[in-house]
Amino acid sequence: MNFSKRIEVMQESPIRKLVPIAQEAKSKGKKVYHLNIGQPDIKTPVEFFEAIKEFDEEVLAYAPSQGTPELIDAIRRYYEKYNINFDKDEILVTNGGSEALIFSLLAVCDHGEEVLVPEPFYTNYNGFGNMTGVNVVPITTKAENGFHLPEKTEIEKLITPKTKAIMFSNPGNPTGTIYTKEEMYMLEEIAKEHNLFIIADEVYREFVYDGLEYMSFANLKDISDRVILTDSVSKRFSACGARIGCIASKNKDLMKQILKLCQGRLCVATIEQVGAANFINVADEYIEETKEEYRRRRDVVYGALKEMDGVVCEQPHGAFYNIAKLPVKDAEKFVIWLLREFDIDNETVMLAPAEGFYATEGLGRDEVRISYCLNVEDLKKAMGILKEALKVYPDKK
Amino acid sequence: MNFSKRIEVMQESPIRKLVPIAQEAKSKGKKVYHLNIGQPDIKTPVEFFEAIKEFDEEVLAYAPSQGTPELIDAIRRYYEKYNINFDKDEILVTNGGSEALIFSLLAVCDHGEEVLVPEPFYTNYNGFGNMTGVNVVPITTKAENGFHLPEKTEIEKLITPKTKAIMFSNPGNPTGTIYTKEEMYMLEEIAKEHNLFIIADEVYREFVYDGLEYMSFANLKDISDRVILTDSVSKRFSACGARIGCIASKNKDLMKQILKLCQGRLCVATIEQVGAANFINVADEYIEETKEEYRRRRDVVYGALKEMDGVVCEQPHGAFYNIAKLPVKDAEKFVIWLLREFDIDNETVMLAPAEGFYATEGLGRDEVRISYCLNVEDLKKAMGILKEALKVYPDKK
Repeated sequence: MNFSKRIEVMQESPIRKLVPIAQEAKSKGKKVYHLNIGQPDIKTPVEFFEAIKEFDEEVLAYAPSQGTPELIDAIRRYYEKYNINFDKDEILVTNGGSEALIFSLLAVCDHGEEVLVPEPFYTNYNGFGNMTGVNVVPITTKAENGFHLPEKTEIEKLITPKTKAIMFSNPGNPTGTIYTKEEMYMLEEIAKEHNLFIIADEVYREFVYDGLEYMSFANLKDISDRVILTDSVSKRFSACGARIGCIASKNKDLMKQILKLCQGRLCVATIEQVGAANFINVADEYIEETKEEYRRRRDVVYGALKEMDGVVCEQPHGAFYNIAKLPVKDAEKFVIWLLREFDIDNETVMLAPAEGFYATEGLGRDEVRISYCLNVEDLKKAMGILKEALKVYPDKK
Repeated sequence: MNFSKRIEVMQESPIRKLVPIAQEAKSKGKKVYHLNIGQPDIKTPVEFFEAIKEFDEEVLAYAPSQGTPELIDAIRRYYEKYNINFDKDEILVTNGGSEALIFSLLAVCDHGEEVLVPEPFYTNYNGFGNMTGVNVVPITTKAENGFHLPEKTEIEKLITPKTKAIMFSNPGNPTGTIYTKEEMYMLEEIAKEHNLFIIADEVYREFVYDGLEYMSFANLKDISDRVILTDSVSKRFSACGARIGCIASKNKDLMKQILKLCQGRLCVATIEQVGAANFINVADEYIEETKEEYRRRRDVVYGALKEMDGVVCEQPHGAFYNIAKLPVKDAEKFVIWLLREFDIDNETVMLAPAEGFYATEGLGRDEVRISYCLNVEDLKKAMGILKEALKVYPDKK
């Protein structure tokens, strides 16, 4: 029996594929600090659970395909805090940010067409490309430049008649990079001059440190019909399991098209929408405290990395990830070694090998993504373990 | 700004596209009996809500990509009641039956390849074809034959080198048809002889009336590596809003491939999985009573249709739909007329025009799908309204 080529070429999630090896380590009683996955440990606001507990319908019916009116209204009001104004028919609720990105690609690209994506990028973008038949064309960015974009002309060289959009996360996963206003205006110009959409994945909107000013791509009024915002409650409200995201765009014709995709899968889970609609009643302090907590963690991780011999990394200013170049030949082998052969007092650490975050062959092989979703104490221990491990790891560069 | 061709050619859901016209009627105070959508009115088992209310994690974390162990175990035990045996790594939890079908198509077909689908079929199959770039090739079936399959040679004529699977719902939506064992063995033979997968959508498994014996395609041991079961709790537990479905197959290699798609979208909503896992504790009487209730409704609807002048339909033996050929030129226009211009005591009825359930151009234009998801009293009233409406409708054949 043959399977499709498109599924056979899909890579396994570099974030999740080593999980069985971690489980094997745990089954032997080893404690594993998970720096591989962006699963926050911050408590989900109680407002979510309260709303769900009050749900008293006797029939768990389909929700509207576009999302419940209450959740759409809550999302509109949330955006208003960022000076972003959407009408209710400019928002569609999705199964997490993942479905928002898949639907965006289906809506603007036909099979075999292309999107430009700065690399390293959120590794599942590769999977979304496979699923939709869209080629992800990388704009390579480098640790030495803090993963900022190259010159306009460098980006324009990559544009072909098949290019339909530029897609990226900002703040960046896995880089932690925040685009400057100059970079945003450059992307705006490119979009206008080359008739492209901008698919802006802004799920880390809240996590901007060091006093940097944040601006959403939805604030670029000149190209509001070209900007497709994809979003999710997962990170900001520590509610990854809710699978509540959205697509928002001022391009009403586009939204009408995407509504057909929403109708095709009927609706997003009703109860999770009820919970998510109540996030609008979470006090602003929740976000402020969460952000401050991640900033502290960033300092622990980046501070520790800087002290390690042979490690190259830049300070991230957003999200909760740090990409680090390690003095090892192959980061995946190193991670497997950490899980199988290394421990300090029966504790070890798990990282995400970064090669899967690049589209260009060979890039990122000696890099890892470190997610700082653990508390400060655990992070300190985990970074201590990493430091010692690098000292004794046999397969170094 | 151009959108993709694939999204522009997508049809609007024939079940949902007339909803704005129904809302318009309702806003004028007219009561609308909804026979257009398969949204059951039966109460969801309390076990679902009880499990959710007991959920006491403080962080709403990602679930495993394949589904929670508890839900997978509950699904395994549910299948055992039907003499279907799956290992835990042969089941993947999906966002409703919809995602199960999309993932199945992605896994067995490349872009431009084909699946054979008996028509009329669940209209969203067209949308899944659009999304995945798979061509839906219809095997036409007819009301006069109770929508049973044509001869083997007729089906084989449709097979090309691009054909990868046969996909259908059984019991059938929108036909209510249950395949005979002879039909199942015929499909088994075709699958073996032409190296095809069978994608069996069995979400209406429980709803089989008139003493007919039910057999799952998963019981065809000879081709267990070719059968992909897609399933959902939506109908049997009246839990459409849960969006909990699954893919199950004895083909472990295939399941490993599909797991990559699951990882790509991270997970299915955690809380809904907690609720759905508790369906295993619902007493068998719930299903028995539900089935008996739908059987009564079927009798009301089919009994009434038989009495109407010029209406052609066969008695359905499963699911909760009836396809009827009406003595009108265009069923969609008739439905719009029902909503806008007809009422009895300010009440009217809404049906799903059936043209969108066919892939062959021109078929089904005078047909409707009637969903019997209302209680017996309401169904009687609704059928009475339909009868009177057909008497006075001006645009008859």
